[in-house]
Amino acid sequence: MEKKSFLRFLGKKEKDFLFLEGEELHHSKVRRVKLGELIEVNTLDGNIYIGKVIDINKKYLKAELIEKLEVYEKNTQLDLYLIVPNKLSKIDDLIEPLSELGVDRLNLVIGKFTAVKEKDILKKMDKWRKKALNSLKQCKRLYPLEISGISKLSDIEANSSFNILFYEKEKEKSLKDFIGKTFKSISIVIGNEAGFDKEEVNTLKEKGFITLSLAKNILRMETALITAVSQSLLFLED
Amino acid sequence: MEKKSFLRFLGKKEKDFLFLEGEELHHSKVRRVKLGELIEVNTLDGNIYIGKVIDINKKYLKAELIEKLEVYEKNTQLDLYLIVPNKLSKIDDLIEPLSELGVDRLNLVIGKFTAVKEKDILKKMDKWRKKALNSLKQCKRLYPLEISGISKLSDIEANSSFNILFYEKEKEKSLKDFIGKTFKSISIVIGNEAGFDKEEVNTLKEKGFITLSLAKNILRMETALITAVSQSLLFLED
Repeated sequence: MEKKSFLRFLGKKEKDFLFLEGEELHHSKVRRVKLGELIEVNTLDGNIYIGKVIDINKKYLKAELIEKLEVYEKNTQLDLYLIVPNKLSKIDDLIEPLSELGVDRLNLVIGKFTAVKEKDILKKMDKWRKKALNSLKQCKRLYPLEISGISKLSDIEANSSFNILFYEKEKEKSLKDFIGKTFKSISIVIGNEAGFDKEEVNTLKEKGFITLSLAKNILRMETALITAVSQSLLFLED
Repeated sequence: MEKKSFLRFLGKKEKDFLFLEGEELHHSKVRRVKLGELIEVNTLDGNIYIGKVIDINKKYLKAELIEKLEVYEKNTQLDLYLIVPNKLSKIDDLIEPLSELGVDRLNLVIGKFTAVKEKDILKKMDKWRKKALNSLKQCKRLYPLEISGISKLSDIEANSSFNILFYEKEKEKSLKDFIGKTFKSISIVIGNEAGFDKEEVNTLKEKGFITLSLAKNILRMETALITAVSQSLLFLED
């Protein structure tokens, strides 16, 4: 039988009750949640509960815990290192698809061709993290996409079992050469519109990254990113 | 040695000369193309030429043919059948990535849950085809993404060597089960936000489509489409 699903919110659990407060309370009012209705609550500690709403007031929504949902816990890790594009608003639109696709961590990297100031990137972090939290409820993933602080390209380490640098000048090797293999963890480095400097590529190669071609046509950064993640998912263990 | 590439335009060839007219002439002026400069011209008949600009006037830009580029001709076919979303503007933003990814034909399909009127879809065709043409120059594909007229779901035929219906209620099978296989042609059917009616799924299954799951999380239509195409590309023959 198919499991019915309900509106999902972020909240907390206290004994046998679930509570929504602040923005989540507001959001539940916008979605016209009523007394007696069933809702799903993600407590951000790896648990999702179903609760029946028993009280709605100005301070909180209270629901009686009905059931703990069985959640799908994955054992894999997908890390994305993105060379920050010069138009930061491009990142705004990427948070949602990256969250939906199950990327675990987005690492923002200052590359040689990044002309944006660190402080301007930091200013947008809150907005991006909020987008990641909101998307979590829609796409029903368990934990939010983690957006890490800024790092330099030379700080990136090849810590995964498959470490890929998608490089526009690589013409020989592509993901197709790895068909049939699966990995527990994958790290992907991907550039912005300006591409990579040769020295940057050498640095990452020495660290253990493999340069791969992503497509025969020229992809814009947004398409490249989603394509890189989508295709890499096929190489993650189940 | 790496081949240098130049600004690409759409034009025509007459004997040993290349001509840009109308919007392409205008576009070349916006990009400040000058006498003596080398440009690439796609004549939309499967050929790309390099020409040296020898005349720019109000009617045309004329270039002397220098070289015929060797083009990469693919032997595969990727067809996408999209159940039209109720917010037509969503398609606006999808033309460019679909073009970049090398989809050959986008077929717009009226499904049971499509609430948009045919005439409103037809009104936007010109805009979408123009977007496809513009993208062609940027991503450097040879032929434009073909956007076919409207069809009904029952008109879709499983004519490719791999015919996929990405179905949100399919939980067992996914593309991972086909790893290692490659196909000469792939058809993908993908729904809008409303998903598919069970009867529609049965119709397509009887025609030979295989239902596959796309992701464990819930994907918005835009993400689903790019992901479906990106992943399918790994199953196309070289």
